[in-house]
Amino acid sequence: MADSPLPASLLRRLIAETFGTYMLVFGVIGAALFFAPDNGALPVALAVGLAVLTAAYAVGSISGGHFNPAVTLGAATAGRSRWVDVIPYWIAQIVGGLLATLTLGLFGVLSDKSLDFGGASNGFDAHSPLGFGLWAVLVAEIVATMLFVLIILGVTAAGSTTSGFAPLAIGLSLTMFHLVMIPVSNASLNPARSIATAVLGGPDALAQLWVFLVAPLVGGLIAGAVYRPLFGGK
Amino acid sequence: MADSPLPASLLRRLIAETFGTYMLVFGVIGAALFFAPDNGALPVALAVGLAVLTAAYAVGSISGGHFNPAVTLGAATAGRSRWVDVIPYWIAQIVGGLLATLTLGLFGVLSDKSLDFGGASNGFDAHSPLGFGLWAVLVAEIVATMLFVLIILGVTAAGSTTSGFAPLAIGLSLTMFHLVMIPVSNASLNPARSIATAVLGGPDALAQLWVFLVAPLVGGLIAGAVYRPLFGGK
Amino acid sequence: MADSPLPASLLRRLIAETFGTYMLVFGVIGAALFFAPDNGALPVALAVGLAVLTAAYAVGSISGGHFNPAVTLGAATAGRSRWVDVIPYWIAQIVGGLLATLTLGLFGVLSDKSLDFGGASNGFDAHSPLGFGLWAVLVAEIVATMLFVLIILGVTAAGSTTSGFAPLAIGLSLTMFHLVMIPVSNASLNPARSIATAVLGGPDALAQLWVFLVAPLVGGLIAGAVYRPLFGGK
Amino acid sequence: MADSPLPASLLRRLIAETFGTYMLVFGVIGAALFFAPDNGALPVALAVGLAVLTAAYAVGSISGGHFNPAVTLGAATAGRSRWVDVIPYWIAQIVGGLLATLTLGLFGVLSDKSLDFGGASNGFDAHSPLGFGLWAVLVAEIVATMLFVLIILGVTAAGSTTSGFAPLAIGLSLTMFHLVMIPVSNASLNPARSIATAVLGGPDALAQLWVFLVAPLVGGLIAGAVYRPLFGGK
Repeated sequence: MADSPLPASLLRRLIAETFGTYMLVFGVIGAALFFAPDNGALPVALAVGLAVLTAAYAVGSISGGHFNPAVTLGAATAGRSRWVDVIPYWIAQIVGGLLATLTLGLFGVLSDKSLDFGGASNGFDAHSPLGFGLWAVLVAEIVATMLFVLIILGVTAAGSTTSGFAPLAIGLSLTMFHLVMIPVSNASLNPARSIATAVLGGPDALAQLWVFLVAPLVGGLIAGAVYRPLFGGK
Repeated sequence: MADSPLPASLLRRLIAETFGTYMLVFGVIGAALFFAPDNGALPVALAVGLAVLTAAYAVGSISGGHFNPAVTLGAATAGRSRWVDVIPYWIAQIVGGLLATLTLGLFGVLSDKSLDFGGASNGFDAHSPLGFGLWAVLVAEIVATMLFVLIILGVTAAGSTTSGFAPLAIGLSLTMFHLVMIPVSNASLNPARSIATAVLGGPDALAQLWVFLVAPLVGGLIAGAVYRPLFGGK
Repeated sequence: MADSPLPASLLRRLIAETFGTYMLVFGVIGAALFFAPDNGALPVALAVGLAVLTAAYAVGSISGGHFNPAVTLGAATAGRSRWVDVIPYWIAQIVGGLLATLTLGLFGVLSDKSLDFGGASNGFDAHSPLGFGLWAVLVAEIVATMLFVLIILGVTAAGSTTSGFAPLAIGLSLTMFHLVMIPVSNASLNPARSIATAVLGGPDALAQLWVFLVAPLVGGLIAGAVYRPLFGGK
Repeated sequence: MADSPLPASLLRRLIAETFGTYMLVFGVIGAALFFAPDNGALPVALAVGLAVLTAAYAVGSISGGHFNPAVTLGAATAGRSRWVDVIPYWIAQIVGGLLATLTLGLFGVLSDKSLDFGGASNGFDAHSPLGFGLWAVLVAEIVATMLFVLIILGVTAAGSTTSGFAPLAIGLSLTMFHLVMIPVSNASLNPARSIATAVLGGPDALAQLWVFLVAPLVGGLIAGAVYRPLFGGK
């Protein structure tokens, strides 16, 4: 959500959103599929945060660096981005996430390996690492995404004297939320990330996907609505 | 403790302190309850530092970004914030911490899971991970909090040419202190964090809580008193 | 790829590239040989990223801070550096990497220890940690290097308001790519790093080396060619 | 080695060096004694880097933020600080390190715990984690300290456009060097750190201490001598 010094064309902004969401999903799902089995979940939390930090520094000035439909919804609700951009941004983000899991899947196909996209999908009950149920996961995803979007709106507030640090703070906060949420639900906070694994994750992942569309969007919406009443600013 | 370009109303500053302390406790206790059992204590130390780093970039310009009664006491003692703000800040911080553990507790309630807030509480003797006793824990918490508040006063000193980095340095120093102090006492350095787990942590956590109110406040007070004689500045 | 305020002589730039590539290989292979056996692969991914971050802040203003033949090729292709510099930079980078593994090897020789440079080499099939085959590794290295070079071109774009953060973003993105790619191929993304271990790594490492020359260079070339059409800028 | 906008008195600078070296040793040895037994060596490498990063942002503008006799020697050799300051700085650094291990030792005394300062001391042969011998450790410490001081001289070079990042780069580079050097020698690179544990570490640690005085100082001296011929600048 860094300021764009020159307004980029919608196409360019959509390419940036596709690229950034691709990076996010490539990092988090690549680490979850390949690195986590021998090294635990910490590297997954680091990978997702560093991917967002990195992509936001690289292309955030073009598109605002949302890389997440819930962030786009929150930004529009808070008056930080235009409502007319929401659907195009969502499509660009979903496409980016899907291209990333298809790329990772291609690595498997080329080597006759079956990759566990089901295990990397978001879920509840038997598909929550600690066995959390529907309501707990629903509430947790709403709360975590709301906090995440409040952080984003805060660090990108107009007049911030530390706006150069916004991508750093956003990426590292996403790592922090994964350090709480991976054991709860594999950590969505991002419908594009959830779609990207669910479509390759089998029937259970698809059946539970709605939770990870609804909850992050509700969280982003609440954040966008309460940011200005709580913290002020333009 | 970043400069506030425009003075925010007390209410807005208290909301910022409540939010930041909520983030701090959500991160550290969420990671301790959910992530640490399978991944060790390093993610807990990272979560607390990244939560503070993040919240300080997001709302530090509103309230100063204390998120900790010991920091507020040290800042007032050093002449960096007003004494009249101390009690309101403390209340806001304690409320923020409590709301965070209640949120995490709610995840458990919604899933019929019992969460080990006692194990996440600060303690000595049998409640110190390495079995440190009262006096060792008391001294260690005083020393660590004193060092932490000296760091904060240093990185936020007027005239600093690197003040944009203050939230980064503060958050990462808190991670560092947890890498020393988690095995000693589960690492308080912050009465609001200790209260937030003790009230849900059972009788032993409550009985030992006074140590984690007194020691951090004493550490913050010492830091506030010695900063200018040692390091100068305004 | 930070701007050089005063043009440094070619010799000075080559020394900077040799130094930076030495640092990169010293970090990643030192951690892989010594630290990883007892601590897993996460420290290796951190070491390589922090080495690049560090060296880019130290000497990036002299040479551009490529430290990687694929980055140099991508920068030339994108019009960011001169074609005439490509071959000298490649030689400087290869020399830097070799000096680093020779230094590490010297530690072993001085202590009559045999160091496993074969295990630290990039590879496929039996030499891929997860057993990925030739085509999967080839595609994965192309994709990861392409993404890495796109990130570099993005964070160093002229007019970027956050150019001071470029070394941070580049280093941490390299950590992220290692969190995906170490289990695939031991993570090259850099022919100079691959050469540096292969020459000490035995016949299999040498026989498979061509993959880690071709794939990263192809990835860098693609990134350099598509950056401006995709993301614009000068 | 950040610029001091106003020259601080020698006493103030020595206090800052004592404080910073105290922080460095408190972090690295506290993590080594308490955190590493259950969590491996990665947290130790993080603790030392974050302690230096943090202290350099807090008091680096006062003293230059050396916190290490080898850095002070290298800075004087490179013409960055005055020779007359070298001995006072060394004394301040050694005092800071000793106070830190005495503090940690006090935690043990207060709880009737014996802390393994011998195991946290630097050493070779049986006291090297991987069993490296004298010559390997001597050369490795010279090389690593030389690289570390070259990095410091680079990131603090006059005219650097990214000087605000110097403490970040210095701290994170120290983490990186520990990710290579902990298994070799427990990672000194700093005579003050080595003295601080050796005096509490038993006869073997004291007998081997000379290596960790000589090698880092030689490394710092070489770096100070070759920096300008290699990389130029004032």
